[in-house]
Amino acid sequence: MSTEQSVTHGYTQDKAAYSRRLKRIEGQVRGIQRMIDEDTYCIDVLTQISAIQSALKSVSLGLMEEHLGHCVRHAVEHAHDTGDTTEMDTKLAEANAAIARLVKS
Amino acid sequence: MSTEQSVTHGYTQDKAAYSRRLKRIEGQVRGIQRMIDEDTYCIDVLTQISAIQSALKSVSLGLMEEHLGHCVRHAVEHAHDTGDTTEMDTKLAEANAAIARLVKS
Amino acid sequence: MSTEQSVTHGYTQDKAAYSRRLKRIEGQVRGIQRMIDEDTYCIDVLTQISAIQSALKSVSLGLMEEHLGHCVRHAVEHAHDTGDTTEMDTKLAEANAAIARLVKS
Amino acid sequence: MSTEQSVTHGYTQDKAAYSRRLKRIEGQVRGIQRMIDEDTYCIDVLTQISAIQSALKSVSLGLMEEHLGHCVRHAVEHAHDTGDTTEMDTKLAEANAAIARLVKS
Repeated sequence: MSTEQSVTHGYTQDKAAYSRRLKRIEGQVRGIQRMIDEDTYCIDVLTQISAIQSALKSVSLGLMEEHLGHCVRHAVEHAHDTGDTTEMDTKLAEANAAIARLVKS
Repeated sequence: MSTEQSVTHGYTQDKAAYSRRLKRIEGQVRGIQRMIDEDTYCIDVLTQISAIQSALKSVSLGLMEEHLGHCVRHAVEHAHDTGDTTEMDTKLAEANAAIARLVKS
Repeated sequence: MSTEQSVTHGYTQDKAAYSRRLKRIEGQVRGIQRMIDEDTYCIDVLTQISAIQSALKSVSLGLMEEHLGHCVRHAVEHAHDTGDTTEMDTKLAEANAAIARLVKS
Repeated sequence: MSTEQSVTHGYTQDKAAYSRRLKRIEGQVRGIQRMIDEDTYCIDVLTQISAIQSALKSVSLGLMEEHLGHCVRHAVEHAHDTGDTTEMDTKLAEANAAIARLVKS
């Protein structure tokens, strides 16, 4: 996966850490399937799902943080250098839409 | 109202449906890992995580609905029949705590 | 305010407490207007709005708790006594819809 | 990039609109108090509170959007011009913390 040009995103340097967190979340989802298979008490299943939701929320907040500090930041700098705000406007609009989805999901 | 063995919960008759939904969610979480592996654009990863959150929220709401309509309902009936509200009080407290976690997760 | 028949809801005995909490929330909303009037830093305004959201969420959870412990409970008892589940079914459906709104709002 | 006085924030040009929205929200909170005074059915009160939560969420998202497009943007430009990232780092950290609070409130 040569990334000579610019396919690095905010999270690129943390890829291994994100992979580990998602693998753990995947295991938690499998755990829920097992709980349901074994007729675990509803409330205990719900508690586990809430834990997964929190873990995913935390992944999302991390990705958003890196998105603002890298992609959005670079787009602002580029607009400042060139006077062309097109890419910056797109990046900001995308970030705002993603924050809104995050808040509502 | 004999509940001799009683390991049936609200969701018992829908177990297969819940299993399918969770298997799909598990696949979506694996999809996120792949996206990160392949340096997918942050915003697209965030959109996918939001979709997983909505799917999990919907599973939780389904479980809660069946919990109220079965476990809580039976506890209320039992208290009404026997005058002993202990189990009902516990079930209601658990449901309220689970709703609070759901709202905050 | 004669309530000879049955216009008591779960929250009736706590009306004064709920009024006080809502009056405080109303004051916090007025505080936000003042902050905006005085060009307060956006982040500080956002922090205050988050505090109001938490306060409202806590009022909602309180009302829901009392709804389950009173209205839903009485509907279940009534269904158990009479064999007519119509009102109970309605009450449960309403509670589930309200929980879903709460989770998504 | 002279910011001689600088007490303009992202929302400054929309102050009147924000004031109107908050005045309406204040009225909705007063409406809840009236509903509780008049023993309105719990579910109807909950529906109204959810409407207020959505309105506040929408105000928060608007403020955040303007914060990113103004305060954060100007801090990034300033860092780019001067090489001093102190203010930008602070502004980004504040924005991330506010997004996290928003997602959890």
